[in-house]
Amino acid sequence: MNNINLQRQQLRNQSQVTFPGFHSLSPAEEFRAIAAWCEANNIEHDVYGEGELLSNFEQKIAQLLGKPAAVFMPSGVMAQLIAVQIWAEQGGLSRFGLHPTSHLIGHEEQAYQAVLKLHGVPVGDRLAPMLASDLDAVKQNLACLLVELPIRCAGGQLPGWEELQALKDKARERGIPLHMDGARLWESRAFYGKTHAEIVDGFDSVYVSMYKGIGGIAGAVLLGEEKFIATARIWQRRLGGTLIHQSPMVASAAMRFDQRLSLMDACLQRTLALAEGLQALPGIRVNPPIPQTNMMHIYFDAHQDKVMAARDKIAAEEKHWAVGAVRPAEVPGWSYTELYVGDNLLGLSNEQVLPYFRRLMEYSCRD
Amino acid sequence: MNNINLQRQQLRNQSQVTFPGFHSLSPAEEFRAIAAWCEANNIEHDVYGEGELLSNFEQKIAQLLGKPAAVFMPSGVMAQLIAVQIWAEQGGLSRFGLHPTSHLIGHEEQAYQAVLKLHGVPVGDRLAPMLASDLDAVKQNLACLLVELPIRCAGGQLPGWEELQALKDKARERGIPLHMDGARLWESRAFYGKTHAEIVDGFDSVYVSMYKGIGGIAGAVLLGEEKFIATARIWQRRLGGTLIHQSPMVASAAMRFDQRLSLMDACLQRTLALAEGLQALPGIRVNPPIPQTNMMHIYFDAHQDKVMAARDKIAAEEKHWAVGAVRPAEVPGWSYTELYVGDNLLGLSNEQVLPYFRRLMEYSCRD
Repeated sequence: MNNINLQRQQLRNQSQVTFPGFHSLSPAEEFRAIAAWCEANNIEHDVYGEGELLSNFEQKIAQLLGKPAAVFMPSGVMAQLIAVQIWAEQGGLSRFGLHPTSHLIGHEEQAYQAVLKLHGVPVGDRLAPMLASDLDAVKQNLACLLVELPIRCAGGQLPGWEELQALKDKARERGIPLHMDGARLWESRAFYGKTHAEIVDGFDSVYVSMYKGIGGIAGAVLLGEEKFIATARIWQRRLGGTLIHQSPMVASAAMRFDQRLSLMDACLQRTLALAEGLQALPGIRVNPPIPQTNMMHIYFDAHQDKVMAARDKIAAEEKHWAVGAVRPAEVPGWSYTELYVGDNLLGLSNEQVLPYFRRLMEYSCRD
Repeated sequence: MNNINLQRQQLRNQSQVTFPGFHSLSPAEEFRAIAAWCEANNIEHDVYGEGELLSNFEQKIAQLLGKPAAVFMPSGVMAQLIAVQIWAEQGGLSRFGLHPTSHLIGHEEQAYQAVLKLHGVPVGDRLAPMLASDLDAVKQNLACLLVELPIRCAGGQLPGWEELQALKDKARERGIPLHMDGARLWESRAFYGKTHAEIVDGFDSVYVSMYKGIGGIAGAVLLGEEKFIATARIWQRRLGGTLIHQSPMVASAAMRFDQRLSLMDACLQRTLALAEGLQALPGIRVNPPIPQTNMMHIYFDAHQDKVMAARDKIAAEEKHWAVGAVRPAEVPGWSYTELYVGDNLLGLSNEQVLPYFRRLMEYSCRD
């Protein structure tokens, strides 16, 4: 880590109030919490993918999502590679569809090409969720279609419920298996007001994250039919994901799963209120203007370096950490940040939060 | 887990004395120990492969093994797949050599074929370590040669020091990069009486395990030149091995690494003495007769079911757990088990141990 990043991390760590995300524990605190939970629940280590802790948690997630089977894996990258590999093999076709901003395209070193020799067809618009009409525009057959819910790069936008159903219908009509990139499925339920099972109904396989919204140390769960998951376990072994023990990942997810899920509705409400307040500030826009999940992208009419310097100044002077990384936006002179609303912001009103964003812009616009 | 296995696990757990392996902690005890270690050492979580805990530990292992760079990974399967992939790519050749009993052939669901589309050429004899003459017998060019040290399936046999040097020379002469499958490198040092760095000198890449002898929760380290390891990090990402946090694995290995290594010489001495005693018992043979590492394969002139029933009887009546899984041997009527000698046996003399093996055979030979 370079010096400026180290200084920023220190500023963040020394802040008394942090706006983004959920309260997180230090490693020592985290491991103490896991130890206490393991003690209270008589936990034994899983061994190479087998064990009560693991299978109980897999079953719990399968039941919640209404899928016959589930397998815990060390990462979402692995889970989704395996899903597209199985669908490609089953379809006898190396071509699959995915959103142009998919994690597989931007953040995995082209693994699906380099490792699996597959061909990914971008489907839909980078600024919007994937719709049935986007699939219609693809004239080639696809081994499967990955649907990211929500689209992170578009500030967490979701298709409307009817739009989602239309996409499911269209895929079924064309005989294309649907895989859900549900890295933020937990963050999507509140918008639809449906159960998780209703949302993923019609998807043939689903990946959900165990660290993003849930806050586990790492890990993911892949879900689908019994046979699909049995095959996925073989591929997990092949990719080096069948660890001797996955207990730290599983325990840290399992011990806080229910509590975290129970906060998501309140987090969306808090996000809606905050977005409304933020948009009234000069030089700030929010995408989407009415958030659909407990995250949003905040756009600043200022250079990213100025905004980060302003954030650091506020952190140094007022011990408040307002935003994470700020990146250049497409519009010259604008920048943006992703704000994930977790329990850090649940206890703070707009009156307590907005003045910091006002100052953030004031400082950013000074010469 | 089926009923008989569950019963056996309970018998093992209820035993007051266990012969195989190192003393292991329950998950609650393990996580408490990790928490205390993190507290004492001011540990922060690593993030996607970066962080002080991770890089300090990688550097420590690199230094110990005299290699320029190292990367921590979730599993040895992943580390070795990546090593052969890089060598294959570098050599422009999909063919590599490995021992016929290699982990890659027997325990990874043919990952190197299924995932990487590589072609593995068995080199050497399944009952013995790989020698220079074995490589001589391979007339095709190889992208790399995997050398397992020791050969687990042959009871942990090692090539003699001169034999190992001759193999290194032969590979260099033919321009074939050498990769060490050092899953049990820690267990091999005592036999050679050399440093770890001297043993791996001449190997272009090395994998070592962090859970087998070391006792970490999971994990492996891959070592090599700077550029090799930089490329390995890209492949780690591709295979889904760049977890958001690897801290539980790293911390659990780091906190006991020195202590575990320091026991290995004593463990070999204990193994030598025990093997001598075991071989004097009727119906028992040991492979190798003079162990070279702190493990051996114990052969019984009895059916595996009889031996396991005898072990269970001893466990139930005397609360001593003598051996792990017993498997059929090639010779009809014979069976064998792998005995790893850790601190469990360090404090027990032959006089305390051998009577149990004597009874094990007596019970096994009853009708």
